Amino acid sequence: MTTEIETLAERLKHFADARDWEKFHTPKNLAIALSVEVSELAEIFQWLTPEESAGVMESVKNADAVKDELADVMIYLTRIASILGVDLIKEANAKIDRNEVRFPPTP
Amino acid sequence: MTTEIETLAERLKHFADARDWEKFHTPKNLAIALSVEVSELAEIFQWLTPEESAGVMESVKNADAVKDELADVMIYLTRIASILGVDLIKEANAKIDRNEVRFPPTP
Amino acid sequence: MTTEIETLAERLKHFADARDWEKFHTPKNLAIALSVEVSELAEIFQWLTPEESAGVMESVKNADAVKDELADVMIYLTRIASILGVDLIKEANAKIDRNEVRFPPTP
Amino acid sequence: MTTEIETLAERLKHFADARDWEKFHTPKNLAIALSVEVSELAEIFQWLTPEESAGVMESVKNADAVKDELADVMIYLTRIASILGVDLIKEANAKIDRNEVRFPPTP
Repeated sequence: MTTEIETLAERLKHFADARDWEKFHTPKNLAIALSVEVSELAEIFQWLTPEESAGVMESVKNADAVKDELADVMIYLTRIASILGVDLIKEANAKIDRNEVRFPPTP
Repeated sequence: MTTEIETLAERLKHFADARDWEKFHTPKNLAIALSVEVSELAEIFQWLTPEESAGVMESVKNADAVKDELADVMIYLTRIASILGVDLIKEANAKIDRNEVRFPPTP
Repeated sequence: MTTEIETLAERLKHFADARDWEKFHTPKNLAIALSVEVSELAEIFQWLTPEESAGVMESVKNADAVKDELADVMIYLTRIASILGVDLIKEANAKIDRNEVRFPPTP
Repeated sequence: MTTEIETLAERLKHFADARDWEKFHTPKNLAIALSVEVSELAEIFQWLTPEESAGVMESVKNADAVKDELADVMIYLTRIASILGVDLIKEANAKIDRNEVRFPPTP
């Protein structure tokens, strides 16, 4: 069975292949690209109060910008994980397992 | 049907609830946390040549560090998208649709 | 005697005052802004080879972009240090003192 | 006359020379290193309220961490500007000149 992230990774590989962009997609370059996209997301929030940040999706303009930047982050995260052979869902769950030991729940 | 990302988002919500951490999880704070984790990933590659970066998973120590940082990025990306009500797979595919028009394939 | 960074910090304080922007300039917001500007600098280099990155100033367009982003980074770094009462030159030298012990020179 | 930033740049060049680190100091690698250090600064503020962030220097532990990270940011910013032949003070002032036109003061 192919998961939704694997399907996305396949589409991204095909997209890069069709444009001869695979040569640019070293893990190092993709890590920088991921960092750039995350900063574009953070930029939306930089001058907002915590309350304004919680209501960011109420403005259509901000909501579209947030969706666009989250899409870019998801794209580069999927691409770098795919190239490195890392299963994001498996590793995220393994990390939460470790965090459950490291940070016991509030009694 | 619940997708694998939705299942992860549920687990993360429960994890935050059980520790009374929801108050910290404003979109603004999560965007900063995401940025911090992406930089910890980039740090692994900062002094590597492109060739060394391509072989990063051959060292067990580096491979473990990469998996750990990718897990943290996936966790915060899933968490912020969940809080903002954004479907990462849908938005990523919509963005690739737009990119296919913006960047035509090499003939 | 006033140093060149103190003079810049004074100008930035006056600039923020005149626009009623001081309320936005919490250390937290300025740290995010600094991070956003550094990513705009990194974006210029993201797909370049090490050799291309070394020659980035040979293109007038790239050189102007680099100067513009370095200016923004210097502005936000000076501003956050000024608000926090930190002397950048003194702290940088103290850090190099510590690094000289931590990383002995190659024999 | 040599400015305080030029003096710092000279010290950093000598430090890299003495350790045979100049080969690592491409503009691209230094941009990544700068980004990593800025994120370590942002990490100090990530879960703080705006009010807590304004009082960050009241805790000796936080104050030392802030000074240490600001030092690292200043070091890499000075180093990359030095390698690219960019005068940070001059470019920052030129940028403020442009911003004064772009953002007129509040009446």
